[in-house]
Amino acid sequence: MNIFDIKGPEDIKSLDETELTLMAEDIRQFLILSIAKTGGHLSSNLGIVELTLALHYVFDSPQDKIFFDVGHQSYVHKILTGRVNEFASLRQYKGIAGFQKRVESTHDVWEAGHSSTSLSAALGMAVARDLNHEGYQVIPIIGDAALTSGMAMEALNQIGSEGRKMVIVFNDNNMSISQNVGAMDEAFTRLRTSKPYNTIKTDLKEVLSINKVGKSLLEGMRNIKNAVKENVVDTSIFGEFKLDYIGPVDGHDLHDLIRVFKQVKNHEGPIVVHVITKKGKGYPFAEEDRSGKWHGVSQFDPVTGKSLAMLPAGHLSWSEVISNTLVRLAAENEDIVAITPAMIGGSKLQNFFDAYPKRSFDCGIAEEHAMTFAASLALNGKRPFLSIYSSFLQRAYDQISHDVARMHLPVVIGIDRAGLVGEDGETHHGVFDIAMLRPLPNMVIAQPKDSNEAQLMLALAFHQDSPFAIRYPRGNVPFTPINLDACDIKIGTWTIWESEEPSKVIVISYGPDVDRIIAKAKVNNKHITIVNARFFKPIDEEMLVTLIQRKLPIIIYETDMLCGGLSDAILSYCNDNQITKQFIRIGLEDHFVEHGSLPQLRKAEHIDTNSLFEVISQYD
Amino acid sequence: MNIFDIKGPEDIKSLDETELTLMAEDIRQFLILSIAKTGGHLSSNLGIVELTLALHYVFDSPQDKIFFDVGHQSYVHKILTGRVNEFASLRQYKGIAGFQKRVESTHDVWEAGHSSTSLSAALGMAVARDLNHEGYQVIPIIGDAALTSGMAMEALNQIGSEGRKMVIVFNDNNMSISQNVGAMDEAFTRLRTSKPYNTIKTDLKEVLSINKVGKSLLEGMRNIKNAVKENVVDTSIFGEFKLDYIGPVDGHDLHDLIRVFKQVKNHEGPIVVHVITKKGKGYPFAEEDRSGKWHGVSQFDPVTGKSLAMLPAGHLSWSEVISNTLVRLAAENEDIVAITPAMIGGSKLQNFFDAYPKRSFDCGIAEEHAMTFAASLALNGKRPFLSIYSSFLQRAYDQISHDVARMHLPVVIGIDRAGLVGEDGETHHGVFDIAMLRPLPNMVIAQPKDSNEAQLMLALAFHQDSPFAIRYPRGNVPFTPINLDACDIKIGTWTIWESEEPSKVIVISYGPDVDRIIAKAKVNNKHITIVNARFFKPIDEEMLVTLIQRKLPIIIYETDMLCGGLSDAILSYCNDNQITKQFIRIGLEDHFVEHGSLPQLRKAEHIDTNSLFEVISQYD
Repeated sequence: MNIFDIKGPEDIKSLDETELTLMAEDIRQFLILSIAKTGGHLSSNLGIVELTLALHYVFDSPQDKIFFDVGHQSYVHKILTGRVNEFASLRQYKGIAGFQKRVESTHDVWEAGHSSTSLSAALGMAVARDLNHEGYQVIPIIGDAALTSGMAMEALNQIGSEGRKMVIVFNDNNMSISQNVGAMDEAFTRLRTSKPYNTIKTDLKEVLSINKVGKSLLEGMRNIKNAVKENVVDTSIFGEFKLDYIGPVDGHDLHDLIRVFKQVKNHEGPIVVHVITKKGKGYPFAEEDRSGKWHGVSQFDPVTGKSLAMLPAGHLSWSEVISNTLVRLAAENEDIVAITPAMIGGSKLQNFFDAYPKRSFDCGIAEEHAMTFAASLALNGKRPFLSIYSSFLQRAYDQISHDVARMHLPVVIGIDRAGLVGEDGETHHGVFDIAMLRPLPNMVIAQPKDSNEAQLMLALAFHQDSPFAIRYPRGNVPFTPINLDACDIKIGTWTIWESEEPSKVIVISYGPDVDRIIAKAKVNNKHITIVNARFFKPIDEEMLVTLIQRKLPIIIYETDMLCGGLSDAILSYCNDNQITKQFIRIGLEDHFVEHGSLPQLRKAEHIDTNSLFEVISQYD
Repeated sequence: MNIFDIKGPEDIKSLDETELTLMAEDIRQFLILSIAKTGGHLSSNLGIVELTLALHYVFDSPQDKIFFDVGHQSYVHKILTGRVNEFASLRQYKGIAGFQKRVESTHDVWEAGHSSTSLSAALGMAVARDLNHEGYQVIPIIGDAALTSGMAMEALNQIGSEGRKMVIVFNDNNMSISQNVGAMDEAFTRLRTSKPYNTIKTDLKEVLSINKVGKSLLEGMRNIKNAVKENVVDTSIFGEFKLDYIGPVDGHDLHDLIRVFKQVKNHEGPIVVHVITKKGKGYPFAEEDRSGKWHGVSQFDPVTGKSLAMLPAGHLSWSEVISNTLVRLAAENEDIVAITPAMIGGSKLQNFFDAYPKRSFDCGIAEEHAMTFAASLALNGKRPFLSIYSSFLQRAYDQISHDVARMHLPVVIGIDRAGLVGEDGETHHGVFDIAMLRPLPNMVIAQPKDSNEAQLMLALAFHQDSPFAIRYPRGNVPFTPINLDACDIKIGTWTIWESEEPSKVIVISYGPDVDRIIAKAKVNNKHITIVNARFFKPIDEEMLVTLIQRKLPIIIYETDMLCGGLSDAILSYCNDNQITKQFIRIGLEDHFVEHGSLPQLRKAEHIDTNSLFEVISQYD
């Protein structure tokens, strides 16, 4: 069967194992060629081709609820549920999403983007099912790294005690985005190498053959149930959570996968099926990757594996600007330590980890713990730098407030991927962090406009005593290392740029947009004043007053949520200081922003520079 | 030795075990009599008298870092570190705190108030120690319930893999505030009943006696180390996290406790000492309590155990108003389910749990999981009510945003203990939730002014389709059940009260302050208009415009953080709609609020009604 003809999972149910195996190969080739064109999550999807086929072969989606933790490994699921012909639009504006999405398909029964929500979701489904006296199956697929995150363990704790029927597919590739960390990974390794499933294969085969030779269905089912029960080991870490366990199963052996899933269909209570998969399976470049660079990729040449994304000469990613500077600062200050929640690759911290292995800590997908760990290090004389994506920082909100801000500890939080991120969409846009952090006392919140300012700001962060959040976007920026001792930035100060002609409008903005606006103003010969509001807290009240006194129209141009953002800080300052002033506010309105390229999203949200200049033109 | 003479832990080091035992009894009696007068956390402190004595006897605080998860069980620690004579001021304004507090003592090496931060803190201390080549001991004391919370497990995962020396005291009383829940509790029970420590007692005694009869210290130490190592079991749930384990130890046997702590002092790497304690030990009322009512108490008669707190006739706590109404609504709507993160008692949900056991879920101290579990129930047709204290809701920020708000799911969040809470202080004031939730799209955020409105609002919450947060404070309120079908509240509408004479000032407020202001205005014959801004999101724009058109001074009177609160919503609305208006804003400024009685704190923060009326007088 041609994969382009798949309308839904019912189309694969009549295939035999040989046909399914061929289909697996077709899907794999399709994934490589398609993602080479669009970019996307490659390795994790290549790793679960057979697994997803087997699940849709054995279970009946959408009645049975098959869903993926995080969701970036749902591409095969999308193919099998009738979306193969939409892959050219993957992650593109108005195209299909890189994650599961309810509006796309009834087969997408849960949505995520952040890790480790699937078990809580599964329990909700199982409880709702039981309360409604329904009989569907609940099948979350969760990876080994996601399992060690706090909320997944909280869910396991309740799943074990509730004892409701569900099949937890433990998709174990022995690495998350890159290498796994933590003690639990060794517990998983003990299971990986124990091979209890292999030793019991024969018994299960016998049971199945008994079933085939004509005993009544009911009797056969009972036999299968007992066989599974007996073959379930309870000495695993899952046993500590009162979960039954079967495995490990070869995640690329369709025959075994199908047989095991057929068996556990009738298992009472929650059972973990431990499936060993290989990330990147079938594509040598991705198979051999241990760095995580094949986890999420831009367009690439499928033959050579070379990325087609071009880093302009003299440019670095913002993450690299920060991490390179951190390495330099750490050479001068041995108290500096770096912490990441499983994001060495994404946050470009490998150079720090290489240079200072004893001062480097990968906590796993554990933002809560990572933040409090950082707080304690700061309390005990260290100068921790915790790098974290803006949207994942939400996981550590309480720890920032209760541990870091309340105790007034000098933790430096590098908020990576701040602002709109583009193709990853709703769950990944880092547009809430300013609003999230501003109400917390003692915080300093800053964003540099360019890499020079970034270097100096990071130096400053380690030379002051407050919690210091420095945010920077996804993307690249021209970079030259500068003298870090020359830092003359004062906390809470903004800078200003004036056109040669007297200004007719003032624009207050921040981040890389500042230089974009200046460049465009020069080209268009606009008479404007542009303010680099590089501190969101504290704001530069002195400069603000001076600006307002000029009696010019003032545009506050934000690229994050308006609610709780920079303009709110300005408005409340003005109100409380008896300053009457109307501002023109540009920023993200009260809704979640979809996925698409950054230029498309900025345009759609009316926060692109063209939209700004249309407003400017009304006054200039 | 008289406990009132204790200046610091060095004073107890010369005592023998008999004297320490006598001291334990003195401390216990002191705690009962002292807390009877001041209120405070009783049961948990009675449970760890011997444990705390043994720790301070064996280890050397403050060089060695002894600290308590949450910290409300640090009273004995406070007594032993020279603060016994300050207990009359416990939890009172400017008195000693109910938690550990760095400003009080160098022996308070960590601060908390929220659960499960101690292990992350311990790892930070151990790492800082090792990087600085210091040799102090790190001794976090964590309870069984706190251990099952996500961030504690995240920390265990890294502690196990880092392998740094620390003594984790697992204070196991088989109940958190009330009964434990979850699968892990059964794993703990297996350990509780396994008694491996008892069976190995003799060997350890022999080793110790060898040491005594004159072998070199070094040799003796080696022997002890080996003996401990051999006696460590690795089949516990802790073994899955690569932690050594010793126990269980009788937490009320000073002799055993001291011996074990002396032994583990020299253990390499992290070790868990499992100590079985009895909550409320030595005070029969508290010992027999399984409901949690002796966890935190108001003033009581130590002889009869009767609370001296009087609930005025016809009053109920806000929590009870909500839970009673929930029970009534659930009778009509079988889709309503209730969820609590280990707060059945505090949130007064026992009546719901009794009435609808199959629709009731205690998730343990697991706010993250609880929120996503609720999201999934809502997605699958249920109408979940999740009750959670405002300050603990911070733990679920990402789940509210990523799972509930983004998927626009009708989860009803009961935000209990909203606003200042009083004696529990900084870590417990629920003053951030409005600022936290307002930037999230799709949210409805409301607060009723009285119990009638609370009942109707809760009814409304289950008859609409958005995430609906309803916040209510600590304390009591007059209550009469009303007809819930008569709900005529429209989302986003405020109400208004006018004095008989034409108004000179308008006050916009919310919650129980509204009626307080009305009452005071009547008594003082003030000519004012008082607005019940019962929705923070969406706000009543129509009414707001009408109010502003009256050209009167408008005071926005908030009792939560100003930053991100109601007035920010009003200011940005006015700015964006070309409305020029200065408001007088009253509310909490940019700092954490200390502990004390509610009236004292409100006065100190200038948010009491007297402060409001002083402002009103300037215009009236």
